[in-house]
Order: sequence, then structure tokens, then C-alpha cells
Amino acid sequence: MTTIGFLAGVLTTACWVPQLLRSWRTRSTADFSWLYLVVITVGVAFWAVYGVWRQDVAVIAANVATLCFLLFLIGLKLSERRREVAR
Amino acid sequence: MTTIGFLAGVLTTACWVPQLLRSWRTRSTADFSWLYLVVITVGVAFWAVYGVWRQDVAVIAANVATLCFLLFLIGLKLSERRREVAR
Repeated sequence: MTTIGFLAGVLTTACWVPQLLRSWRTRSTADFSWLYLVVITVGVAFWAVYGVWRQDVAVIAANVATLCFLLFLIGLKLSERRREVAR
Repeated sequence: MTTIGFLAGVLTTACWVPQLLRSWRTRSTADFSWLYLVVITVGVAFWAVYGVWRQDVAVIAANVATLCFLLFLIGLKLSERRREVAR
């Protein structure tokens, strides 16, 4: 049954890979709410801190990876915004 | 320090509210990868099952709520697709 927890962690982390590939390809992230991205990023950072406290390597690894993916997506959205301002 | 875990759960669940409000208002979800939505939904469902197994009410509540939000977003994306086909 721990396998379910492990699989859950892998899926909710890996899901960001196809999303980033799409966002990178289309350079379109307008449908993402800024508030969504900011709040989920802070939440995931808190999960990572919680993992450090619990000394749970799986929680740390999953959330640090997700954090990197989210920061990349935020970077894409920021660069889109800059292009819009420049237009 | 459990507060950090609690806050993390609240944030990674609540983040979906502004996203759904935006997607509902704009009726535009094209920037979301289908694979992202499907994989994160299965992952969150697994987290909920894991919570049931661990008898962890917080994990169950956070993930069942997130599951509902995700199914709503998938519904919006499906209805957008139907409109595109009808066009």
C-alpha cells in the first residue's frame, strides 16, 4: 500500500513534465492564473520544508522537483508578460 | 511545525480556487496540457486512497477537494473542446 503513496508522489510530480513541454512549445501560459501559480508554489515549498522536518526523503525529493518545475513555468509566464509589454 | 504541513495542504488545495474562477470566466483552458490534467488527477486520487489507508483525515480531505476542483477543470476543458468541434 506504500506503493500507492509512492505512485501518488511520482504522478503529482511527473505531471508537470508534459505541462512544461507544452508551455515551452506554445509559449502560451495565459490560461494559468497568477494566483494559482504563486499559491501552489508557496504550498509546495511548505511541503518541502515539512519533508525536511519529518526527515522524509521522498517528500523532500518530490516537492523540490515540483518546485523547480513550477519556477520554470513562472519564468515562462513572466517572459510572456514581458513580450506582451514590449508589443 | 505540523502547522507548516497543515498550511502546505491548505495552500496546494486552495490554489485551485483562483484557477477555476479564471478558467470559468475566460472559458479558455487551451494552455493546460491534457496529459498534465489526467496525470495530476490520477495522482491526487492515489493520494486520497493513500490517506484512507493511513486513516489520515487531513490527507483525505485535501485530496478529495483537489480531486473535485480538477474534475471541474477537466469538465471546462472538455466543454471547450466540444465548442471547438462544433465551430
